[in-house]
Amino acid sequence: MSRRSYWGWGLESDEPTEQQRIDYAKKLSERHGVTLTPPPHPTISGVSLRAPRISAPAELAGICSTDTHDRAGHTYGKSFLDTVKATRGVFPNPPDVVAFPRTEADIVHLLEWCDTAGNVAIPYGGGSSVVGGVEAPKNEARGIVSIDLRELNQVLEVDATSRAARIQAGALGPALDAQLKPHGFTLRHFPQSFEWSTLGGWLATRSGGHYATNHTHIDDFAESIRMVTPRGIWESRRLPGSGAGPSPDRMILGSEGILGIITEAWMRIQARPTFRASAGVTFPTWEAGFEAARRVVQAKLWPANCRLLDPIEAGASAGLDGTRAILILGFESAELSQRWNITEAVRLARDAGGLIDEADILVVDGARGGEDVGRQGAVGEWRNSFIRAPYTRNISAGLGMIGDTFETSITWDRWPEFDRQVRAAVTEALQRVCGGGTLSCRFTHVYTDGPAPYYTYSGLGKPGAEAEMWSEIKKAASDALIAAGGTITHHHAVGRDHRPWYDIQRPDMFASALRAAKKAVDPNGILNPGVLIDP
Amino acid sequence: MSRRSYWGWGLESDEPTEQQRIDYAKKLSERHGVTLTPPPHPTISGVSLRAPRISAPAELAGICSTDTHDRAGHTYGKSFLDTVKATRGVFPNPPDVVAFPRTEADIVHLLEWCDTAGNVAIPYGGGSSVVGGVEAPKNEARGIVSIDLRELNQVLEVDATSRAARIQAGALGPALDAQLKPHGFTLRHFPQSFEWSTLGGWLATRSGGHYATNHTHIDDFAESIRMVTPRGIWESRRLPGSGAGPSPDRMILGSEGILGIITEAWMRIQARPTFRASAGVTFPTWEAGFEAARRVVQAKLWPANCRLLDPIEAGASAGLDGTRAILILGFESAELSQRWNITEAVRLARDAGGLIDEADILVVDGARGGEDVGRQGAVGEWRNSFIRAPYTRNISAGLGMIGDTFETSITWDRWPEFDRQVRAAVTEALQRVCGGGTLSCRFTHVYTDGPAPYYTYSGLGKPGAEAEMWSEIKKAASDALIAAGGTITHHHAVGRDHRPWYDIQRPDMFASALRAAKKAVDPNGILNPGVLIDP
Repeated sequence: MSRRSYWGWGLESDEPTEQQRIDYAKKLSERHGVTLTPPPHPTISGVSLRAPRISAPAELAGICSTDTHDRAGHTYGKSFLDTVKATRGVFPNPPDVVAFPRTEADIVHLLEWCDTAGNVAIPYGGGSSVVGGVEAPKNEARGIVSIDLRELNQVLEVDATSRAARIQAGALGPALDAQLKPHGFTLRHFPQSFEWSTLGGWLATRSGGHYATNHTHIDDFAESIRMVTPRGIWESRRLPGSGAGPSPDRMILGSEGILGIITEAWMRIQARPTFRASAGVTFPTWEAGFEAARRVVQAKLWPANCRLLDPIEAGASAGLDGTRAILILGFESAELSQRWNITEAVRLARDAGGLIDEADILVVDGARGGEDVGRQGAVGEWRNSFIRAPYTRNISAGLGMIGDTFETSITWDRWPEFDRQVRAAVTEALQRVCGGGTLSCRFTHVYTDGPAPYYTYSGLGKPGAEAEMWSEIKKAASDALIAAGGTITHHHAVGRDHRPWYDIQRPDMFASALRAAKKAVDPNGILNPGVLIDP
Repeated sequence: MSRRSYWGWGLESDEPTEQQRIDYAKKLSERHGVTLTPPPHPTISGVSLRAPRISAPAELAGICSTDTHDRAGHTYGKSFLDTVKATRGVFPNPPDVVAFPRTEADIVHLLEWCDTAGNVAIPYGGGSSVVGGVEAPKNEARGIVSIDLRELNQVLEVDATSRAARIQAGALGPALDAQLKPHGFTLRHFPQSFEWSTLGGWLATRSGGHYATNHTHIDDFAESIRMVTPRGIWESRRLPGSGAGPSPDRMILGSEGILGIITEAWMRIQARPTFRASAGVTFPTWEAGFEAARRVVQAKLWPANCRLLDPIEAGASAGLDGTRAILILGFESAELSQRWNITEAVRLARDAGGLIDEADILVVDGARGGEDVGRQGAVGEWRNSFIRAPYTRNISAGLGMIGDTFETSITWDRWPEFDRQVRAAVTEALQRVCGGGTLSCRFTHVYTDGPAPYYTYSGLGKPGAEAEMWSEIKKAASDALIAAGGTITHHHAVGRDHRPWYDIQRPDMFASALRAAKKAVDPNGILNPGVLIDP
């Protein structure tokens, strides 16, 4: 198997060839009437890193690396800017050592080393952070150890009766699902980073996954979590529910590696669906679709999919004419036909002004031999292109396009005005910074009390000036989200990049409590300093 | 309106007469072949309390009371032993002052006073704690101020679009629902303490409510919580969902008054149901019912009611013959007929061996004029008798019966063996302590990964020896719950009474973090010291 690309998404075999990059630059140049030149093809031999400032003690040397490829590959996450910088070979602040623990005991020993030697420890799952969550703090005098959990990738136990499994934190999405499949189960958690993110990373960042309604965040699927802190193991009981004090798991969920390193968890798993139903209901305008999404979720039909695309996204990915919005509804079950659910959901959407032909309501009852239906056809295509999307950055990075996504959530009462304010701010920024651009939105998740909108934008930048240009647009978008009452992140996490806005959003008293909690389990502040809170 | 009883459940008008107590003692004496004598009728004039050790400063005097009735009435919660002691006029450790703040600013000032003067502050909602959650710590040298939130009882805002309402923490269940009703909404949170417990208490103790499946704990309905701590206000944003760091609300939920006093919350509310469906499916044995409950919840039909009664409870409250168990299924909606849901749920229950005549499946589609259906008939009767149950202690307290409930949760794979172990331990204790007794069980809530069983027991005690006898049985039950892998509480909270077992259950690292968090917002340890953690 090919090794991970040190600069791009996926494996080295997923990297584009020089010719593909040239061809793509030409196509983009013609589209925008400019001349774009791809940066030199990244090669690890062209990368020169600061010499490691620390070395692992003898007893840990076998699981530690100071190899340039490993260190460069663990310098960044996978945000827009990360990829631009990595493509250009800019690695001013790499980890000094990359550790690949093989057991939980290895992790205990690594933290002991960091704690006593005064090093910083950065938990690293799949490295897919888009918020600076796995990179070293700037101007950090201490040695930096990136702790990569890839070797802890096993499903250790499956409890078919309770529908739960004990899974190691370093398991990537596909590996984890492949191990559950022979038992007839799946975690059914498909963030866009699915291929290159891990269970531990999902838990640490409160990842949002497959389900558009009802239980959506990974939080809801965690039955019990086990974490190594510098002062000992933190592990909750396996319990379906509890009212015994504040939830110990909920303090780990979203802790982004500042309290400890998650090593395994008992996760609630799903029987593989064999019944499905889906429908794409169109609306004359974006605004007309809101009411339908709200009615469906407030009626508690709990569709697995309830994705509302604005006319731009509907045109680009659902083949509509660019004036109409579409609400994509989907239900699934391992036990029951979803005909009633889709019928009722479509009825509610039609009541709200939606249009769909009866023939376009798809119901699949029972699979051929338990096969996972729905990976075929339009749904399967959408899912594949969704999962493949991050690979396109491998070919576009460094060409001078500025493009990114941001996401949030807001209550229904404020939503339409919120959308107007956010679009106005980002449109203005795109005009000012790029001389124009595109901006679109969809709902990725929907709650009874409001949607989680997901915005995508792009504009023409100047090669070499991406950082400043991107930062201006990011600031405009983030300022608007916070000013209009939203969250700085619904499922991308906080990391280092979202700190200024997170600091406004989160209650000061909670920050005091969290700082104190960290101090209790990580008294020397070795874990991911600067993420979420200042040391 | 009658004032609150200082010793019993509810109002003074709910207290039994002397003759009712004598008649009840006679009935019980005949049933058990013994002679039970009611203790003297409790009268406040017969209660003598330790003199208040502190007095409120002049600016707070108007909202503070040192009245004997107020102090006696705030000495205990409403556990079995609390009521026995209060009935007998035993109040060795009353609060010195009872405060009735009228505004959040009053609460800020009360905490300032306690913080600077070195008093203990005990948040008091409806006072229905059954775990010692609202009583003063023993051997506490500091003055004790019980802070009763009854005056903060308003629904402040209703957001019909988002289905959410801003509600003050001191609102009792009925008052809160009465204020939502004109808007067509309800919180639909009906713990057994509904009439005499408050929103703030529910949030602070992670109360379990109406819904048997899916979202059940009050946690799931909290959109944003506002809390006064000794160091400032802690308030989260109104958000349908967020992935920005650990949830600030989830650290408040279950904090049982040790971090601050909750003053208000934005709560997700429900449209009042007008569609209902229900069915009582019987099973030849208790064990036969497990599989049905599991299949229904794992199929994600999400019934509002999924209550499995063992043969003893089925005999007592569902009119069965004492050999069969019953699974009571109920669905409800404001928007959609529940015919499909009940049909599928009954099919799954029948597949698992359940019996029900087709004619006994009840479907009500649409209410007469939006009336809340289901308060009528058997369901309404069950609900009323459920809510009325705590009043029976007013007449039985002090007669010498030992009777209580305890509750937990456990994963399905361990459940049947768990039940055997718990029943064996409690049966042995009842035999040893009371010479026998009754023990029964039902599922109050059901999760995809396991049930929340609720046990009820009673035995004949000796008047005056209740405390020792009850404690022995409580210890046997709690030891068994923890040894067999359960939680010490699914929805009754920890308080002071569950501390020994909670201390075993909760991760030590989490306890360190929680202690540090408390120290950050309550540095002088004035809030509910000894609850959940030691100062």
